[in-house]
Amino acid sequence: MKRQPGDLLIIGGSEDKESDEEQAILRQAAKKAISEDGGHIVLLTVATMEPEQTAETYRRAFGRLGVRRMEVLDIRNREQAYDPANVEKLSGASVLFFSGGDQLRITSQMGGSPLLERIFALHQEGVAIVGTSAGAAAMSGTMLIGGPGSATTNGSNPCLSSLAMAPGLGLLKGVIVDSHFSERGRFARLMGAVAQNPHNLGIGLDEDTAVLVRNNDEEFTVLGSGGVYVIDGLGIRFTSLSDMHTQGILTVHDARVHVLARNDRFSLKGRRPLPPLSPATP
Amino acid sequence: MKRQPGDLLIIGGSEDKESDEEQAILRQAAKKAISEDGGHIVLLTVATMEPEQTAETYRRAFGRLGVRRMEVLDIRNREQAYDPANVEKLSGASVLFFSGGDQLRITSQMGGSPLLERIFALHQEGVAIVGTSAGAAAMSGTMLIGGPGSATTNGSNPCLSSLAMAPGLGLLKGVIVDSHFSERGRFARLMGAVAQNPHNLGIGLDEDTAVLVRNNDEEFTVLGSGGVYVIDGLGIRFTSLSDMHTQGILTVHDARVHVLARNDRFSLKGRRPLPPLSPATP
Repeated sequence: MKRQPGDLLIIGGSEDKESDEEQAILRQAAKKAISEDGGHIVLLTVATMEPEQTAETYRRAFGRLGVRRMEVLDIRNREQAYDPANVEKLSGASVLFFSGGDQLRITSQMGGSPLLERIFALHQEGVAIVGTSAGAAAMSGTMLIGGPGSATTNGSNPCLSSLAMAPGLGLLKGVIVDSHFSERGRFARLMGAVAQNPHNLGIGLDEDTAVLVRNNDEEFTVLGSGGVYVIDGLGIRFTSLSDMHTQGILTVHDARVHVLARNDRFSLKGRRPLPPLSPATP
Repeated sequence: MKRQPGDLLIIGGSEDKESDEEQAILRQAAKKAISEDGGHIVLLTVATMEPEQTAETYRRAFGRLGVRRMEVLDIRNREQAYDPANVEKLSGASVLFFSGGDQLRITSQMGGSPLLERIFALHQEGVAIVGTSAGAAAMSGTMLIGGPGSATTNGSNPCLSSLAMAPGLGLLKGVIVDSHFSERGRFARLMGAVAQNPHNLGIGLDEDTAVLVRNNDEEFTVLGSGGVYVIDGLGIRFTSLSDMHTQGILTVHDARVHVLARNDRFSLKGRRPLPPLSPATP
């Protein structure tokens, strides 16, 4: 019997690490590790330049939530991603958690390696994959990379100048994920990424906000305290993308945008918001 | 013969004050004062708590652009807005320029006063009105006011918590204007304002970016280096606005969004982007 692929939990960064309430994002992240017999979390700190500090933060947060075991896999170079001992460390994990940092470190150190192949295989077998901030951005097939500054540092051209992209992990197809969305004013950059190929849905995640992707990647549910912004570019009637006269800002007409909040559901397959599960709302 | 109302130039704040190139926003703001015989600019510093510094900044900027005369009208209290001497100071002006600061100071100190009545009358007679930042926000009939923090200071509820509104000047009907748009991550708050009454178009202006409203308020053209975001809520199929279960973020489905860049035109009357004037673009 073929197993269902594991859940993907994609977090916009800066998730609450103190809360232990039912709706806290990290509680959802830890769920599978807590419920499974001998289940544990492997924290992948490849993205960050401060792996010890990151590990300590999550060790404390997950401990508070009742996770009995968290292992840290800290890949510093490609050689380590080829080391069978490191690949073996993933065995038996219920949850693989990619920390924040620089998404290019994730793909450049792990892309094409036996370690990443093993992660794909485990996901197919039902292991949950979680990524926050850089770990979230890396989920898509093509990922946004920050460039030297975020859109907020320079009002003069928030779109094209910060629209640097690179090949991502491809754990979730057909989307472009951006994190720290409202906090760093990234609407224009995600819109620009969508306009490059409207096949992809743009998913912008506020901080302390996540989408839980289930049912073989067909739909997601929103978790956390902020908003999720879905940019659907299929209706775009005009873009200045290939117009050589354009400098800076990209003109885009008629994009469709959904703003989603906690418990809202969205069909990735149907590109539509799904009706709320609560019978009280229309 | 009835004269055409004057232009409205609505600036997203932090406009370039050093540049004297043809496309600089302040050059457009000064145009009418330079071209008219004896024309001058009246700078209204009512919004700011640093009127001297603001006046000095614009005196230097407009002097560099060739403006021969700039008067400062600094209203500190409502009494001054009733003083005939102050009303008289507007006579003969080609351009009235509202500085940035706090938009509530503009409306609370000037709302309903003879000074504001005179400004409305002058606008109808062809005088150009310019507003930047707070001066831009105050242009609409209902205006967004910042609240204690902008959306960027708190990722937990960027929408409703910062969605404080107040009656504006009403110089431009049927719109809600927000400034510092990408720089302060204000997409969710403008979307929330639009969802409250989708009759209004949301117009988000990046810094150093402006819309020049012409032809009896029927259309605008984009100036400056950033983007203009038009949120059209007429297509919204669902919003959680009146759902008492909602906390924080507002769910909105199917908003239409246009991103516009320098020289792009938009029909306010038709709620549609207009074709570029350049024959080179489709």
